[in-house]
Amino acid sequence: MLSFECDYTEGAHETILARLLETNMEQLPGYGSDHYCQQAKEKIRRACGCPDAEIFFLTGGTQTNDVVIDSMLRTYEGVVAAQTGHINAHEAGAIEHSGHKVLALPEHQGKMDAGELESLLEDFFGDENHEHMVFPGMVYISHPTEYGTLYSREELRRLSEICRKYQIPLYMDGARLGYGLMSSETDVTLPDIGELCDVFYIGGTKVGALCGEAVVFTKQNMPAHFLTIVKQHGALLAKGRVLGIQFDTLFTDDLYFRISRHAIEMADYMKEGFRKKGAEFYLESPTNQQFVILENHRMQELQKEVSFSFWEKLDEDHTVVRFATSWATKKENIDRLLELF
Amino acid sequence: MLSFECDYTEGAHETILARLLETNMEQLPGYGSDHYCQQAKEKIRRACGCPDAEIFFLTGGTQTNDVVIDSMLRTYEGVVAAQTGHINAHEAGAIEHSGHKVLALPEHQGKMDAGELESLLEDFFGDENHEHMVFPGMVYISHPTEYGTLYSREELRRLSEICRKYQIPLYMDGARLGYGLMSSETDVTLPDIGELCDVFYIGGTKVGALCGEAVVFTKQNMPAHFLTIVKQHGALLAKGRVLGIQFDTLFTDDLYFRISRHAIEMADYMKEGFRKKGAEFYLESPTNQQFVILENHRMQELQKEVSFSFWEKLDEDHTVVRFATSWATKKENIDRLLELF
Amino acid sequence: MLSFECDYTEGAHETILARLLETNMEQLPGYGSDHYCQQAKEKIRRACGCPDAEIFFLTGGTQTNDVVIDSMLRTYEGVVAAQTGHINAHEAGAIEHSGHKVLALPEHQGKMDAGELESLLEDFFGDENHEHMVFPGMVYISHPTEYGTLYSREELRRLSEICRKYQIPLYMDGARLGYGLMSSETDVTLPDIGELCDVFYIGGTKVGALCGEAVVFTKQNMPAHFLTIVKQHGALLAKGRVLGIQFDTLFTDDLYFRISRHAIEMADYMKEGFRKKGAEFYLESPTNQQFVILENHRMQELQKEVSFSFWEKLDEDHTVVRFATSWATKKENIDRLLELF
Amino acid sequence: MLSFECDYTEGAHETILARLLETNMEQLPGYGSDHYCQQAKEKIRRACGCPDAEIFFLTGGTQTNDVVIDSMLRTYEGVVAAQTGHINAHEAGAIEHSGHKVLALPEHQGKMDAGELESLLEDFFGDENHEHMVFPGMVYISHPTEYGTLYSREELRRLSEICRKYQIPLYMDGARLGYGLMSSETDVTLPDIGELCDVFYIGGTKVGALCGEAVVFTKQNMPAHFLTIVKQHGALLAKGRVLGIQFDTLFTDDLYFRISRHAIEMADYMKEGFRKKGAEFYLESPTNQQFVILENHRMQELQKEVSFSFWEKLDEDHTVVRFATSWATKKENIDRLLELF
Repeated sequence: MLSFECDYTEGAHETILARLLETNMEQLPGYGSDHYCQQAKEKIRRACGCPDAEIFFLTGGTQTNDVVIDSMLRTYEGVVAAQTGHINAHEAGAIEHSGHKVLALPEHQGKMDAGELESLLEDFFGDENHEHMVFPGMVYISHPTEYGTLYSREELRRLSEICRKYQIPLYMDGARLGYGLMSSETDVTLPDIGELCDVFYIGGTKVGALCGEAVVFTKQNMPAHFLTIVKQHGALLAKGRVLGIQFDTLFTDDLYFRISRHAIEMADYMKEGFRKKGAEFYLESPTNQQFVILENHRMQELQKEVSFSFWEKLDEDHTVVRFATSWATKKENIDRLLELF
Repeated sequence: MLSFECDYTEGAHETILARLLETNMEQLPGYGSDHYCQQAKEKIRRACGCPDAEIFFLTGGTQTNDVVIDSMLRTYEGVVAAQTGHINAHEAGAIEHSGHKVLALPEHQGKMDAGELESLLEDFFGDENHEHMVFPGMVYISHPTEYGTLYSREELRRLSEICRKYQIPLYMDGARLGYGLMSSETDVTLPDIGELCDVFYIGGTKVGALCGEAVVFTKQNMPAHFLTIVKQHGALLAKGRVLGIQFDTLFTDDLYFRISRHAIEMADYMKEGFRKKGAEFYLESPTNQQFVILENHRMQELQKEVSFSFWEKLDEDHTVVRFATSWATKKENIDRLLELF
Repeated sequence: MLSFECDYTEGAHETILARLLETNMEQLPGYGSDHYCQQAKEKIRRACGCPDAEIFFLTGGTQTNDVVIDSMLRTYEGVVAAQTGHINAHEAGAIEHSGHKVLALPEHQGKMDAGELESLLEDFFGDENHEHMVFPGMVYISHPTEYGTLYSREELRRLSEICRKYQIPLYMDGARLGYGLMSSETDVTLPDIGELCDVFYIGGTKVGALCGEAVVFTKQNMPAHFLTIVKQHGALLAKGRVLGIQFDTLFTDDLYFRISRHAIEMADYMKEGFRKKGAEFYLESPTNQQFVILENHRMQELQKEVSFSFWEKLDEDHTVVRFATSWATKKENIDRLLELF
Repeated sequence: MLSFECDYTEGAHETILARLLETNMEQLPGYGSDHYCQQAKEKIRRACGCPDAEIFFLTGGTQTNDVVIDSMLRTYEGVVAAQTGHINAHEAGAIEHSGHKVLALPEHQGKMDAGELESLLEDFFGDENHEHMVFPGMVYISHPTEYGTLYSREELRRLSEICRKYQIPLYMDGARLGYGLMSSETDVTLPDIGELCDVFYIGGTKVGALCGEAVVFTKQNMPAHFLTIVKQHGALLAKGRVLGIQFDTLFTDDLYFRISRHAIEMADYMKEGFRKKGAEFYLESPTNQQFVILENHRMQELQKEVSFSFWEKLDEDHTVVRFATSWATKKENIDRLLELF
């Protein structure tokens, strides 16, 4: 059966596995203190244009969001996110488990509106006293969003400006960052993100790694005793090498960018094919997730041969579904999908 | 430099890497729902003699302890552990982060005494009212303990009996379980553990895997919606296959037991060598961790060529240090260590 | 200066103080085990028509919401509330501090819509798997709401029916319950609430007591070891008598209802006066909180002699403000307010 | 029946009730912003010799400990306490509920030993890395302790010196502070405590108030947004006046000290009487709690006419029990107790 269900259906890019094999019997210290981790961090600093960035490798996305947010907020602060932000909708309450409220703003195709953010902060920190309310202590955005959409450089700049005005950090969830950076429709670069965000993570799990996310604190602003906080959240990997070697490989010879570019090419190819077949898109996504409206009976037909994601019921007769490409997607599989479509 | 610092200095057993490579491009569903996970669970059920066991794969030890304990306790309950239990001493307060107290009992070479446990429970659930106190809701033991020591079958049976009398689960942290089972001095088998414990985990990280622990709920007692609780703790791996394939490999052709046995043979060889050299042991450990008392100047000398763990200061002139063997230890390295010792 | 700022500007009803004085030197056991607490509970059971209700006295509203919600939810569950529900907006994240998400539904003059609740539950517990999301584990409503509005008996019945269908408890925050019950526009009685809700609290702080709220578990459904959970939340009063005696007094000779009725009469009188003066109401409130739209300059003028609450900015020139009456409001003060208005 | 069960069996000192009655119908703003609270704080500042102290009124002891400790610790820090410290033994895990570990040291008649504290801190912050452990972030002592014992000025000075050396706050739980200050065997004054502690609370509940504890941050070190943190813990009293008026009364004309002195006189009288009867004391307590060893059959006899507290089983035939005096104890009741003894 063909699968376009998500961008983590395969294992890891073969170069990563080769490197794991090569380095396997080397004796290395634990918890991220090995030289592969150091090397990977150095390469990431360079790629981000942040020579002073502090970097930590974690295992998965929800874990990363939980640790970063809990470590940067004071106990009485919450994190502002779009209604559809992953932390608000699909992390089983991990942020609340650590004691913090997600302050939800309306979503616009998955994105937060800078004007709405500014109003919220203006109101909160304005004349009236809000000491019975949760303090907005951080802004969370995902890029690409959960709908595959992207912020423009100007949109990011505005969000960043607002956050700095109110002195709260801007945090970007980059679970699919590669696919955002390699989109043909973006004007945002990795150094832009390094400049405009206070902290962000570079997703590995969905972009070629077995697991792993690289958290980048761009301004020497990693919270004190971060490793202890990571340990306290059950998020410290004993064999930190597993993450270090993978990221070292991804940031050698632009592998991360090259495989991300492949996913985008595959998505563009699929999109073009869908269009020719007269498919109706739920929204215009410039990245690797494509949302299509299907009549229910056609959806059921297609499900017999292809796996993809249910997104939401549109009406009685139609459903929004998602097809994802990835670093591992084969062109021939898209051809086959288009035949069946 | 030689390293006997811990049992996770190398990557993974080569058979595991080979299997990861072989299955790499297979498209699989996420979050542990793939067939390798199912297969691995079936093999583990068989090895434990628990045909009805419910099994879940997690990434690391602290994470596993946190998720298991938080999911099985009511909010007003705490977990009883020996003073030196990993959850009490070396997990940066992960259990408390989830809201639960660790109720510490004295340790006896790392072990909990059944009589002391019984007294605590008798007192708590006896005539007097203790409703202003934390309820003992679970018993945690590590096997091998943090000092490499082991419970006898009879000791385990007693602990189990007491827990059942008071209807609280007995939980075994098996981070190094393989090394316990393969010790030449144990009378405890994996089916014994399946019978006597309500939940335990089989450690992979320290026994041949890149990462991964298999939690075994022995009596169809996995808490409802356990996957959601795992997600809420940031502990759900997207590519569950990474854990499933590793455990499937470890429980094929007794690999887990064979490589554990190797570590024990290496430990016995090292112990014998130390003894011949007149080394003084801090305690008698029947597993892969050996605790030796060194004069400080000899320790400093040795550290120039070998890495090992500081355990504790014994007095002004002496230090307790730990040498660990593992599935990956090479005999020639022990020979070299003994030469230098 | 006149104050209509809130319904807790005075101390306690004089009968309560008299009773505290009378019983003051009686030696009583602590933590709510005294006979005044027992007596008060018995009277409340009778007033609610719930002979089997289990009752606990707590000190304040946020505390009560936190303890009730945390004690009734499983760790992976959240509580559904209207966007403007007190727990979502004005409790500084107390619910999240205990680890639970507030799942916000749209508000309709402060109320939750039964249809919207049903959709949420239908979607969640329907065919699709939502195990990465927070489980709706309880429904929270306030009655009167934060906008002074009331549910009709039929609306309550529908909410109750939906909750029972999905087997999750319906919880009513009755911080101002007396003012709801005594409204001339309600068809809801205290026994109705006892029948339709699984748990609710009868507010004392805002209705004549120095402090205190009576939590009523209507169906012998008080969580096990509730006193310990209360203690764990720092909410157990040593001198439980202070709460017992107050509630005993409030539920003797219908004091609670009589003083609530007074507040409603004062509100109706004030409303009538405002109307005659041509005031514009923000919404139609049948209880003791009245929301009026004032031009900013008139608001500033009035503030010199009367204190009242800022509610929200309506537009550049207008503000919504709140005037509250209470058990202690004097008619002459309303006359004076109306003169100044 | 006579009761010496604890020091909170009566209501409040009559002067307090009189003041509550007198001020009852005054309209006051909420949440501690009224002038009685301001006035009370000013009087407490003077009594403590801390003109810059920041003060907050809370309702009960466990609540106060929870809020103070959680607000002053970083998430990865725990609080050091004696094994028998109230927070470690009798608060149902309130500290852990807020995510922090209690790091227990041995107790010496309820007291912490300065040398043992210093060793713990020296070891933790010494050469070895302890980043997998909970950081000691505060020291908690109770004075009087749970055993009625007191620190000498020199002992307090040492603890304070050690805390300052390691830059962690020293926190004193003063639930029974009055009884400590008025003991005939103490050399510690309230200004000493203001000088040596970073934060402490003056207990009201056990010393003449209906409820209430006054937290004193001695060095302008109240955590930012403390009121919001209090609210988040469900600990903010709407009618803050109830606490303000009580403490204003207690700190007018030395009432707090005079009534504390009475309790001590009563304790001394009772102690003397016990001695004459040949009673065996479990330990020498210089405050209002007296611990006596009784043969079980005599204990059962006495319980028929007097209520007192079970403390612990000494052996098969003997039990340690506690008799407490308070601000409200009547001499004639002690006479009666001694007759029965």
